[in-house]
Amino acid sequence: MKSSSIHIGLLGCGTVGAALVHLLTEQRDSVKHRTGLDLSIEAIVVNDINKERSIPLPNEVLTTDASSVIGNPEINLIVEVMGGIEPARELILGALNSGQPVVTANKELLAQHGAELYAAAEKSGVDLLFEAAVAGGIPVVRPLRESLSGEPITRIRGIINGTTNFILTRMTQDGVSFDEALLEAQELGYAELDSTYDVEGYDAGAKIAILATLAFGADVTSEDVQHEGISGITVEDIKFADRLGHCIKLVAVAEQIINQEGKSEIGVRVYPALIPFDHPLAAVNGSFNAVFVEGDAVGELMFYGPGAGGRPTASAVFGDVIDASGNLQRSHGSLIGALDRPLICPPESFESSFYLNLKVEDQPGVLARVAEVFENHGVSIQSMEQEGMASEARLTFITHSVHEKDLLHTLESLKSLDVVSNVDSVLRVVGD
Amino acid sequence: MKSSSIHIGLLGCGTVGAALVHLLTEQRDSVKHRTGLDLSIEAIVVNDINKERSIPLPNEVLTTDASSVIGNPEINLIVEVMGGIEPARELILGALNSGQPVVTANKELLAQHGAELYAAAEKSGVDLLFEAAVAGGIPVVRPLRESLSGEPITRIRGIINGTTNFILTRMTQDGVSFDEALLEAQELGYAELDSTYDVEGYDAGAKIAILATLAFGADVTSEDVQHEGISGITVEDIKFADRLGHCIKLVAVAEQIINQEGKSEIGVRVYPALIPFDHPLAAVNGSFNAVFVEGDAVGELMFYGPGAGGRPTASAVFGDVIDASGNLQRSHGSLIGALDRPLICPPESFESSFYLNLKVEDQPGVLARVAEVFENHGVSIQSMEQEGMASEARLTFITHSVHEKDLLHTLESLKSLDVVSNVDSVLRVVGD
Repeated sequence: MKSSSIHIGLLGCGTVGAALVHLLTEQRDSVKHRTGLDLSIEAIVVNDINKERSIPLPNEVLTTDASSVIGNPEINLIVEVMGGIEPARELILGALNSGQPVVTANKELLAQHGAELYAAAEKSGVDLLFEAAVAGGIPVVRPLRESLSGEPITRIRGIINGTTNFILTRMTQDGVSFDEALLEAQELGYAELDSTYDVEGYDAGAKIAILATLAFGADVTSEDVQHEGISGITVEDIKFADRLGHCIKLVAVAEQIINQEGKSEIGVRVYPALIPFDHPLAAVNGSFNAVFVEGDAVGELMFYGPGAGGRPTASAVFGDVIDASGNLQRSHGSLIGALDRPLICPPESFESSFYLNLKVEDQPGVLARVAEVFENHGVSIQSMEQEGMASEARLTFITHSVHEKDLLHTLESLKSLDVVSNVDSVLRVVGD
Repeated sequence: MKSSSIHIGLLGCGTVGAALVHLLTEQRDSVKHRTGLDLSIEAIVVNDINKERSIPLPNEVLTTDASSVIGNPEINLIVEVMGGIEPARELILGALNSGQPVVTANKELLAQHGAELYAAAEKSGVDLLFEAAVAGGIPVVRPLRESLSGEPITRIRGIINGTTNFILTRMTQDGVSFDEALLEAQELGYAELDSTYDVEGYDAGAKIAILATLAFGADVTSEDVQHEGISGITVEDIKFADRLGHCIKLVAVAEQIINQEGKSEIGVRVYPALIPFDHPLAAVNGSFNAVFVEGDAVGELMFYGPGAGGRPTASAVFGDVIDASGNLQRSHGSLIGALDRPLICPPESFESSFYLNLKVEDQPGVLARVAEVFENHGVSIQSMEQEGMASEARLTFITHSVHEKDLLHTLESLKSLDVVSNVDSVLRVVGD
């Protein structure tokens, strides 16, 4: 595969920017091997060159002069992770208008000025990609833009604010009050000191406005969103909801509704809501996010993953960088490249936790003899249950993670034990 | 937006093909408005022109002659939904070699001959897209190819066979035996009469081979997969697992392992496994599928949705068709197009189910008076709980879906009722 150099100009170097520099450095050879793209960051535009940073950066890469990258024909691609409306908006427009593709993680900017930016990209025929702007590391923007571009989407419901989901999860699982959980979120750095933006639903509102734009192909902005926050939710509400078979989450909803005159209206709202325990959104806890999409043809889809954090967000930015870089270079092709045959693991070299179900004689000392077999093969037990049945008993075990060959040897020894009548089941356990 | 005509040649017209023709006809105007692409099916290659079909097709579109579309410069795009290895392989290669992009849903073909097809697409510089080949309507192929193309993926675990998941869900929720559940799946048309391909894990094996190829950028085929099926799983296994806090699912796993010589090996396996109840995969029931992806930077992601079915699968094919068609026409751009401002719903026009928590006087007849208020406003009650507290009582309700304006009127009436001391909480309930 022939190699193409892509020179990147990075705007901003906070948590996400630093994680991106790290990821790009670490994966540069692998990406070059797989895609033929040699990605390098040529310039990083920051406010203060002398600020201490979590990653080592060569001084000549840092600059305070954005005009050295925007419109510079030596810079093939602009990545914006500075945040805020201005100067980000002006810089991105400058890049797009001069034919530079842009990758951005800036949700406020897209939620307020998306239509203007999308139109500028369309006019110049260059990419404007923003996977990281909506739900951190979860790939949901690309599936909505591409995989579902012909799908008649009827509704999107998202748990897309990590701070409020952390607070509600703590209130639910540990019974702490809203105020305590908020304080804890602030101490852990999940919530800002001014928590209004998260707690009252503005952050989720900006994200659902972007998702609504993608899903319905209409210019929806954060000003169209109707908000209700979670500051009024009590531990008692959560307990009553629990008794009725529900949990409480902050949900962002975008839906298309036919009004009384038969016209299509779009509703974009954020509110705390009860979710039945058997709904896939009910399992989205802590700092995880999920986006639940309903379409006429596809039915129900859900995208789940980390909604924030430097490395997950940088991963989403990185995917966009590779995509936009590829678009600069090739016509199309398989996007997979030439494939080598890999080494395939032999069965015995895997590690797993196991479930075993043994029929044994119900007599004193059986458990000790069985346990000794496990111990001899270095297999440690995570949990055990014993059940008597007339003259026999049943032992069920879950082991800690072991080499499969050790488990096979354990099984042979167990089968040869006179007190073991039968090994009824051996199944793997999905663990970490 | 200028309009471009795309002429499609369809190979095969079974369940998915017919659903695609339907979806494309229904959405043609909407896609044209949003993307400028005017998609039309110009020819459908079938074995038997006279066979009765579930959708009306003009006779002149049907043909038995594949050579009339493959390599025909009037046909811009080939969609293959005929299945099987030959002649599908030969036809797709012919199309790619003559510069026609191809969309396919053919998992067996990709799992056996993927490397050859990807190389042909790469050589010709045309798209080969196959979102529908892995997990029906779930967009997981595109996120893996594009969003996660720079992500160091360590493991993928999927519940990607609907038949076995239906059987295990029936065994778990209703205690029916494996044989009964299989018979039922066959009667409902979920399982073939020869169930080996599903039950012994070959179907899931083909899909995980494709996912492994995408995740690790290596040529993994269905022959590399190690299989264990679910025919040995009993209701007793499921009960013991339940007591230990787990459910049992057929899991397909692709992972990268460093062997003792420090070399990277790939393991691709299908087996029944225990999954802890609090793992996101545990909530994937019935005919739903999910793919759980772990990466060094992004952490944990899950993609959830319908794993099969004509319309969901056609939705995935349709997304690929629009993508490949767009790639034929434009350089790049925003992929979003020009946006109009939508009508935004006024708050009172939404419908929802509601949770209400009322403090009331604990005296006879209170519930009747409260219930009468609901009734007067046409709000029907789905469930109710009453709890006494000294001289007061607490009533919690979940309503059926109501117009929000009716609920607002109900609240006003409730607040004016002398026996109601306070309306403590009003929250929406996420329903269908």
